[in-house]
Amino acid sequence: MTTNRLQAFSDGVFAVAITLLVFNLTVPNAASGHLWRALRDEWPYFASYLVSFFVIGIIWVNHHTIFDRIARVDRPLLFLNLVLLVWVVLIPFPTQLLAKYIQSGSDSHVAAAAYSGTMFLMSVAFSALWSYAVFSHDLLDERIDPRVARSALPRFASGVAIYAVTIGVAFVNAVVCLALHAVIALYYVFDQISTSDSPAAGAQDLPQPDQIRSPGAE
Amino acid sequence: MTTNRLQAFSDGVFAVAITLLVFNLTVPNAASGHLWRALRDEWPYFASYLVSFFVIGIIWVNHHTIFDRIARVDRPLLFLNLVLLVWVVLIPFPTQLLAKYIQSGSDSHVAAAAYSGTMFLMSVAFSALWSYAVFSHDLLDERIDPRVARSALPRFASGVAIYAVTIGVAFVNAVVCLALHAVIALYYVFDQISTSDSPAAGAQDLPQPDQIRSPGAE
Amino acid sequence: MTTNRLQAFSDGVFAVAITLLVFNLTVPNAASGHLWRALRDEWPYFASYLVSFFVIGIIWVNHHTIFDRIARVDRPLLFLNLVLLVWVVLIPFPTQLLAKYIQSGSDSHVAAAAYSGTMFLMSVAFSALWSYAVFSHDLLDERIDPRVARSALPRFASGVAIYAVTIGVAFVNAVVCLALHAVIALYYVFDQISTSDSPAAGAQDLPQPDQIRSPGAE
Amino acid sequence: MTTNRLQAFSDGVFAVAITLLVFNLTVPNAASGHLWRALRDEWPYFASYLVSFFVIGIIWVNHHTIFDRIARVDRPLLFLNLVLLVWVVLIPFPTQLLAKYIQSGSDSHVAAAAYSGTMFLMSVAFSALWSYAVFSHDLLDERIDPRVARSALPRFASGVAIYAVTIGVAFVNAVVCLALHAVIALYYVFDQISTSDSPAAGAQDLPQPDQIRSPGAE
Repeated sequence: MTTNRLQAFSDGVFAVAITLLVFNLTVPNAASGHLWRALRDEWPYFASYLVSFFVIGIIWVNHHTIFDRIARVDRPLLFLNLVLLVWVVLIPFPTQLLAKYIQSGSDSHVAAAAYSGTMFLMSVAFSALWSYAVFSHDLLDERIDPRVARSALPRFASGVAIYAVTIGVAFVNAVVCLALHAVIALYYVFDQISTSDSPAAGAQDLPQPDQIRSPGAE
Repeated sequence: MTTNRLQAFSDGVFAVAITLLVFNLTVPNAASGHLWRALRDEWPYFASYLVSFFVIGIIWVNHHTIFDRIARVDRPLLFLNLVLLVWVVLIPFPTQLLAKYIQSGSDSHVAAAAYSGTMFLMSVAFSALWSYAVFSHDLLDERIDPRVARSALPRFASGVAIYAVTIGVAFVNAVVCLALHAVIALYYVFDQISTSDSPAAGAQDLPQPDQIRSPGAE
Repeated sequence: MTTNRLQAFSDGVFAVAITLLVFNLTVPNAASGHLWRALRDEWPYFASYLVSFFVIGIIWVNHHTIFDRIARVDRPLLFLNLVLLVWVVLIPFPTQLLAKYIQSGSDSHVAAAAYSGTMFLMSVAFSALWSYAVFSHDLLDERIDPRVARSALPRFASGVAIYAVTIGVAFVNAVVCLALHAVIALYYVFDQISTSDSPAAGAQDLPQPDQIRSPGAE
Repeated sequence: MTTNRLQAFSDGVFAVAITLLVFNLTVPNAASGHLWRALRDEWPYFASYLVSFFVIGIIWVNHHTIFDRIARVDRPLLFLNLVLLVWVVLIPFPTQLLAKYIQSGSDSHVAAAAYSGTMFLMSVAFSALWSYAVFSHDLLDERIDPRVARSALPRFASGVAIYAVTIGVAFVNAVVCLALHAVIALYYVFDQISTSDSPAAGAQDLPQPDQIRSPGAE
């Protein structure tokens, strides 16, 4: 299987998952004359819709950043990609869970932890995928220096650590936890913007495809 | 990331969003022998389905018109495209909201304003995207004359203004507001038809890709 | 806009619409020990799922058959394609409507007429699309002889006539009407099989792309 | 129709079907303070989500493995592919059915049999598709030796047999039946991993595209 085909399938999954987030929003049954208030009361659904939308958007950008540096796909990589997609496809569920329970006392912590846990497992899958690609002998694009590629691993690890922290924050305050996820998403967006054309979401130090490995560099 | 890949992902989102509109339509629980009447009573759902279908269809055409003139994608453009898609993906929600409350007195104004507001924010995102591309130094296709590209900006602004007007109309009459959205969509379709191969939805004056910038024109 | 891009977007819509048909099927709330019977009682949902699946499948094949003969896309064609897709995207709704009311006396006729009417309008849109392409001066692939292309129009008209007949049958018996739609779908599939590589669904006489127009044939 | 186009459409269907599995998971209405327990009680939904996700993932990989060896598409092959997709699109339904009834005594056997039966019919469709391609005169890629291709048929048959066995197991214990489906999916994944770049899901003995038929080998 070619990288292009795997990317096209994954893109399809990303596009469907990001669009299904709209089902998070349900038209309220408002008492006559109170529609505006009913909509305002649904703010957790709108807020979590927005946050999850940009989270999936950034995962999509990140996915391309990684696979643009990979030249060949073998079975374990295919499997690791499916594991990543399991968590991406799941995202609408914890999004709705968090929206429903974000104001529900002790249950809000459970819901926020489920949301953060999904993101944590997604980031673990991402790290596993990139680690496997980096330590394989023949998957990376030959223009990528494996040592430079490996130097990006700590950034992936810090992404995993950040999402682990959000699990802890979930047990403090669910609203703060959601806000933190928004900040993380914006950080990755704007961090990327400042460095313009470098990769996203913990992969900023990944070598660019045009960083051709200089022969005799070792 | 290449323009093609961004377009393919966006096309996927457009295709899913336009198809999900069918969930706007629910099979009625009609009293025995009254199915025809029950279906007739659902006319706001059918009407808003049709209007939103063509609105998304025109956004899709427009999106291609714009990105066919863009040669490179950088991070801010990627982010602006995600902001545009946030509103596109949202469309099924205000569509259903308007259908449900279009005959509900004061709530009908809130629902119509939510519908118009979504379209307004979508047109703002579109204008921001094109403005960013036009004023960047290196994103436009080099065959496009930046001055001609900039001359299309007032048309985008007028699109924003038209959708701002629909918000006002929402507070007058929700049915008229929906009809106005239908007229706007048809205008863009038929305006396009009359000028045959020019771009759509407020972008009619965009330069064609074959309008090669003549050297020394400045 | 290129034919390829229009086909890719349309394919996306077809793929989503055909997959959404599964929502037609709802898991029954069966009394303990009666799941098998509860599932059997849902036969109209399974039957209509199957019929609509193959109907959309054949529309998809047909759509390709037509656009493989078209070299250029202009605005009216783009608009006619959106009109066709309006009916394709709608299909899950009359499918569920028919399944729910197929055993409901006089309402069964309304539901079957809605199903047949959707197919009728879809076939009208298909005919309009092909007619427009055939009578345009510059849309057809230049290897296609316009006179041969025009000779396929009666077959499109007969497709429209067949679906008009199903509307009449809807008022006789809804189950027979659904069965008739199954037969029509199978006819197009097997008719196609017998003539092997010719186009589908009323387009069997369309010229093949390799039927190069012989110069001086007029 | 080209193989590429059929694969792109099928990929779209796979991507939508695999993503729709998330609707299997519904946010529980938990009594205050009991959300964690309510989520735990939904384990059959999570378990069946995971199993079906990897089943569809493996079908997708398998589908590519097969069509990468096919050079031409005729009408019967197109039809057989639609028959395969009918079962793929159906998968979210028996997945939800099994999750809902897996702990419901005699109904659990019906639900598990429906799940296994869907997989069985899917594997039959797969076998029919490959058999048709293998015994056709001109569909296989010319670099594939038909005799080697035919030698893969027993593996397809064993896949059919394995899924037939799961129908039997369904009537013994529904949980064991679901676990068996998980094991089958994992077997195909890891079997594939061990043989690295060979095809998946009962197609391991398929000839590789680079196994060029040596002339005069017969």
